[in-house]
Amino acid sequence: MTRKPARINPDRPEATAFAPATVANVAVGFDVLGFALEGVGDRVRVSVDEDATEAVSVESITGVVTDLPTDPGGNTAAVAVAKMIEALDLDVGLRIALDKGIPLGSGMGGSAASAVGAVVAANGLLVEPLSAEALLPFALEGEAAASGAPHADNAAPCLYGGMTAVVATDPLRIVGVPTPAGLACVVVRPELRIDTKEARAALRDDVPLELSVEQSMRLTGFLIGCHRGDVDLIGQSMKDLIAGPQRAVAITGFDAARDAALGAGALGFAIAGSGPSVFAWVRSIDDGSSVESAIRAAFQSLGLNSQAWVSRLGCAGAHLVGEQAER
Amino acid sequence: MTRKPARINPDRPEATAFAPATVANVAVGFDVLGFALEGVGDRVRVSVDEDATEAVSVESITGVVTDLPTDPGGNTAAVAVAKMIEALDLDVGLRIALDKGIPLGSGMGGSAASAVGAVVAANGLLVEPLSAEALLPFALEGEAAASGAPHADNAAPCLYGGMTAVVATDPLRIVGVPTPAGLACVVVRPELRIDTKEARAALRDDVPLELSVEQSMRLTGFLIGCHRGDVDLIGQSMKDLIAGPQRAVAITGFDAARDAALGAGALGFAIAGSGPSVFAWVRSIDDGSSVESAIRAAFQSLGLNSQAWVSRLGCAGAHLVGEQAER
Repeated sequence: MTRKPARINPDRPEATAFAPATVANVAVGFDVLGFALEGVGDRVRVSVDEDATEAVSVESITGVVTDLPTDPGGNTAAVAVAKMIEALDLDVGLRIALDKGIPLGSGMGGSAASAVGAVVAANGLLVEPLSAEALLPFALEGEAAASGAPHADNAAPCLYGGMTAVVATDPLRIVGVPTPAGLACVVVRPELRIDTKEARAALRDDVPLELSVEQSMRLTGFLIGCHRGDVDLIGQSMKDLIAGPQRAVAITGFDAARDAALGAGALGFAIAGSGPSVFAWVRSIDDGSSVESAIRAAFQSLGLNSQAWVSRLGCAGAHLVGEQAER
Repeated sequence: MTRKPARINPDRPEATAFAPATVANVAVGFDVLGFALEGVGDRVRVSVDEDATEAVSVESITGVVTDLPTDPGGNTAAVAVAKMIEALDLDVGLRIALDKGIPLGSGMGGSAASAVGAVVAANGLLVEPLSAEALLPFALEGEAAASGAPHADNAAPCLYGGMTAVVATDPLRIVGVPTPAGLACVVVRPELRIDTKEARAALRDDVPLELSVEQSMRLTGFLIGCHRGDVDLIGQSMKDLIAGPQRAVAITGFDAARDAALGAGALGFAIAGSGPSVFAWVRSIDDGSSVESAIRAAFQSLGLNSQAWVSRLGCAGAHLVGEQAER
C-alpha cells in the first residue's frame, strides 16, 4: 500500500494559526514539563504561492520581533513547513507571514511557537489535516534550526495546550498533566537578554546525587499535587534546585523578584525556560495583579523595566484563527 | 499548656504487630518511592516489663534471622521504642520479642519493618494511641541505628501501606501514590548478600545532567501512569538509569533475570532497594507465577538458589495482630 500524497484544498489558499507562548521546565521538570499561556503568542499565516521558485519562502516578519532570518533554511517556521512539505510530498510552494507576539530570547518559547504556528496553519490548508501528534515532529525540526537541539518542552504545550510532560524521547512521547482549576500564572520579562544556547551551555554537566534526589522529591510532590488538586503540595514542591540556581545568577534581581512574588502570595516562582523571564503560579487569576506588581517593582528598583502577562493555566494550544477556524 | 505523659493501658500488658516487607526506590524514585508487600514481614511483640532495669530490652529474636544485636542501643526495634518512651515520658520498661520474616540484607526493608513493627506494637499498649504520622519519626530513628541515615522510603510504606513518596525531608512529608487495581509484584531474592551501607557508598556522587533528565522523564511517566491507571505508561517508564546500573553489577545474573522477567510479560523490573533482591511488577496476580519462575530459573542457571514472593500492590501497612487488633 502506498500512501497517497497529501493534497491542498483548492478552496483554501491560506490559513492563519495562533500559537501560544509557553513556559518550559516549570521549576521541577527541566526539559520535561511545560505549559501554555493565554493571550500572548505568535500568529502565522501560511498561503499557497502559485509562482513559487522554492518550496517555502518567508514573506514578512512583523510584530515585537522583526530581526529574524528570512532565509528559509534559518527560519524556524520555514524549516518546519519545509519538513512537512517534504514528508507529505506536497507539490506546492508555501509562503509564510510571521507576526511575532513573543519577545526574542525571552524564555517564553518564541521559536517553538513560530514553528508550531506554521505547521498548524499549513495543516489548515490540507484536504485531510494531520493530527497534532503527527505535526509535532515537523515543529521540532523547525525549532532545532534556532535552538540547536529539539526540546519538546515548549513545542508540546504550545501545540497541545495545558501542561504537558515529555516522558520519553526515543520515541518521543508526550502526556498531559492536569492543573487544578482556577490556578493562574504570572510571567514577567525583565529587559535583559539571554541566549538559549549559552544558557544551556552554562549548566554543569553533572548533578550531585543528593540534589538529584531532592529534585526528584519535588518533582514527585509537584506531580502528585497536580493530580490531586493539592495546591499547597504544589506550592511546597515548586523549587528548582538544579538548573535554576545556575541560571538565576545571570538574571539581575532574581532573588528580590522571587522574594517579592512569594511575599505577595505566589505559590511558587522560578525561571521561565532558560530565562530571563520569570514566572509565578498563583492561586487565582485575581491574585495575579498583586504578584505581577510585586515582581515588576523588584526589577524596577534595580533599574530594570519589564513586561508582564497574567494567564490562566490549562489554556488552549495552537489553533486556526479567522475564517478557517470556523469550518 | 503542658502535655500529659502518655499512659500504658493497664489491661493491655502486651501487643503484637505485623510490619510488611517493602520495596524502596521502585526503579525511578531513588530514596523517594517505596511500596509494601503482602504476607512477608516481621512480627514484633512488645510487652510491659514490671521488673525492668532499663527502658527497653530485647527478649528474643526468632525467625529467618537471629544474629541481630540484642543490645538495645544497636537493635533497630529497641532504639525506636526507646525514642518513643523518651518522647512520651513513659514510665515503664518494655520488652521486645522480634520474629523476623524478612531475610537480612535482602533489600526488602528488614530494618525498617522491625522498627515500624516495634513502634506500632508499643503504640498498641497506650491508652491514647498516636497517629501513624506521629510514629514515623521514632521508627526512622530506629532504622538509622542499622543503616546509618534514616531513609523513609522503606519505613513510610511499611507504616502506611500501599505505595508512598517522600516529597520533602525537612520537615519530612510523605504522600500516598495510587497504583492501578489488580497490579501485583514479584520479589525474588537470590542467595547473595549485599550490605546496604556498602551499596550506598558504591554510588557515584554525581549524576550526568543528561541521565538526570532522562530519569525525570521516567519518574514523571511512572507517576502519571499510576494516577491515570495507565499500565502501559507505567511499564514504559519503569527503568532505573541511575542507581540501578551501578548496583546491578554486584548482582550476579541481574541482566538475565531482567530479560527473563520482561520476556515472561513483566511490566518492569529493577533492584529492590539496594538489592540483591529484584522485583517485577506484573499486570495481575495471575501473571505472577510465570514471571517468578522465569526470574528464578535465570538465577538458577547461574547456580544461584533463590526465594520468591508474589504480592498484590496496595496492601496494608503495619498493624496490630491477634487479640489487640480486635479492640
